[in-house]
Amino acid sequence: MEVAQVLRMNGGMGETSYACNSTIQGKAISMTQPITEEAILHLCSTTLPKSLGFADLGCSSGPNTLVVVSHFINVVHQKCCQLGRSTPELNVFLNDLPGNDFNTIFRSLPDFYKKLMQGKGDDDDFGPCFICGVPGSFYGRLFASQSLHFIHSSYCLHWLSQVPGLPEINKGNIYLAKTSPPSVVKAYLEQFERDFSVFLGSRSEEVVPGGRMVLTLLGRRSEDPCSREGGYSWELLGQALNDLVSQGLIEEEKVNTFNMPIYAPSPREMKSVIEREGSFDIDRLEAFEINWKQEDNLGDNETNKLRDAQNIARYLRAVVEPLLANHFGEALMDKLFCRLREILADRMLKEDAKLVTVIVSLTRRKY
Amino acid sequence: MEVAQVLRMNGGMGETSYACNSTIQGKAISMTQPITEEAILHLCSTTLPKSLGFADLGCSSGPNTLVVVSHFINVVHQKCCQLGRSTPELNVFLNDLPGNDFNTIFRSLPDFYKKLMQGKGDDDDFGPCFICGVPGSFYGRLFASQSLHFIHSSYCLHWLSQVPGLPEINKGNIYLAKTSPPSVVKAYLEQFERDFSVFLGSRSEEVVPGGRMVLTLLGRRSEDPCSREGGYSWELLGQALNDLVSQGLIEEEKVNTFNMPIYAPSPREMKSVIEREGSFDIDRLEAFEINWKQEDNLGDNETNKLRDAQNIARYLRAVVEPLLANHFGEALMDKLFCRLREILADRMLKEDAKLVTVIVSLTRRKY
Repeated sequence: MEVAQVLRMNGGMGETSYACNSTIQGKAISMTQPITEEAILHLCSTTLPKSLGFADLGCSSGPNTLVVVSHFINVVHQKCCQLGRSTPELNVFLNDLPGNDFNTIFRSLPDFYKKLMQGKGDDDDFGPCFICGVPGSFYGRLFASQSLHFIHSSYCLHWLSQVPGLPEINKGNIYLAKTSPPSVVKAYLEQFERDFSVFLGSRSEEVVPGGRMVLTLLGRRSEDPCSREGGYSWELLGQALNDLVSQGLIEEEKVNTFNMPIYAPSPREMKSVIEREGSFDIDRLEAFEINWKQEDNLGDNETNKLRDAQNIARYLRAVVEPLLANHFGEALMDKLFCRLREILADRMLKEDAKLVTVIVSLTRRKY
Repeated sequence: MEVAQVLRMNGGMGETSYACNSTIQGKAISMTQPITEEAILHLCSTTLPKSLGFADLGCSSGPNTLVVVSHFINVVHQKCCQLGRSTPELNVFLNDLPGNDFNTIFRSLPDFYKKLMQGKGDDDDFGPCFICGVPGSFYGRLFASQSLHFIHSSYCLHWLSQVPGLPEINKGNIYLAKTSPPSVVKAYLEQFERDFSVFLGSRSEEVVPGGRMVLTLLGRRSEDPCSREGGYSWELLGQALNDLVSQGLIEEEKVNTFNMPIYAPSPREMKSVIEREGSFDIDRLEAFEINWKQEDNLGDNETNKLRDAQNIARYLRAVVEPLLANHFGEALMDKLFCRLREILADRMLKEDAKLVTVIVSLTRRKY
């Protein structure tokens, strides 16, 4: 399986689409906004060239895509107003894999530009802003040399460039779990280290010295790669698949040969790759928790529990369906996510599992 | 009607799609390749920075889109091999209106990159090439200041930014014709002059001094804006619409209020705008003819004539259907283009009409 050709969020605007099921990702973006803002302000106070390059890596297509862009633009604009100077020319690059639905983003841009101009005073104070789409994998070069000042990426870098070549079968699991053989754990970690290092090396060519990067991804706090916090959703998804095996709907072999191209690193694992690669200094590196549940839950009654299980199953479906459909077939998807919803209602919510997220804020070294 | 929101080529890959009906546009691209090549070679011999910016304006989505890009890349690469130096980093910008089908282009890029590398020797000689999509109208800024070295645009600049505000009714016509009142002719010319001047002004900020631009568009040789060579297709399309009026399928009023947002200029009209705007020097300015018919016609028999009429009706439909459907309604389109095909078989092919095309090659002035 070529991950770059198969991986994409569910398209369109329907019930199972990513656009309609990305509240969790939106939550992560708002929670990390203070750190993003700090990095942008720092950038503006140290360097403010005539033209600023901003890239969002793994921009997807949905309500979150342009939130990040407008936050960046607004912070830069406010800072410039404070400093009594006009906003620089802004070059915004939206990146995702070639299978992403760029058309929907592009068609929303005329309205976005209109809203952007509202309350920005006259044209003279607010420089031009150019938004373009850059299709391709971030595990390789994407942008011109030294063309970027700020890079943002939210909930993407846990996706590996490929499923690691596993020396043993990861029997019964689709990601690292307590029963995964040590050789499988090692292969996953090494794949992450290789990918993340390639990522940093590619970005180091594209970001100007002193430029900043804020990356948010699924991770874990524990140093044990098999700990539940890093892969609980995949453990439950694996269980749903195994249940379909028991029902004779999937061959066991099919589950044994499927492994998620994902890795949820600990801050220490990330730090070690960043330091070894050597192009970026770490300004901040933190892990935090996001609640899977909707926050307006009043009490823990049955209705809320079922609604939460339904929502979480939809979030996961929006993100992994194309990948799973490619291996197990489109036809099984409804059954699979129905079973997952039952498991979620039964276990995850009882255990009050949280989504552990790691954020790192980096500055491109000046040699 | 907001032209930028309505104008787009027919999407998808079906029978009436632009992708399947753009042979004429492809013909124009190959006929103008020697002039494009000359401009690229001139650019490479006068300036060869570490990074080259290339933009195709109105790239559409179909077999022609990447032909232009690969021609540019191959010419630059060959010239660099001759000069014994490595190819610069290439930044390719594909522009079209936000309604264009960028997804299809983006999904074809992985294969395009693969083919591109074939026969280019090892990676060291062939610098990285970054392709991105830029949605927006070229009657305004699209790219960062001084970021482009070469701009190409084929069969787009005859589209105006809007239907000119007409002081009188252009009765029975949908474009300039012998019966158009002089005030209508004047309004069309002035709209073209305004639009083309805004176009040149926007590009002058984006193209580096010494940078080149090759623009191909529908035009005419005659100095009479109402001459048949500039608008014969629209005359026949107008006739098809009037026939539907006679059949009681469209109200006469509907046709009287529809005017094509198009202008087919003469070389002299273009020259006059370019000189007045003042940012570019003219290296070449020529008019040439393209045969509407397929060239493998053996004899002038009935089968060929009907096939040609069918093809031309499809070319026109692929280009103007969204615009016409917006005004006259989707439901009439099959009837309209069926009638157009009959008219084409009867008149245009008998009269051996050609498509007059104007090409201009420009250099950004160094002050």
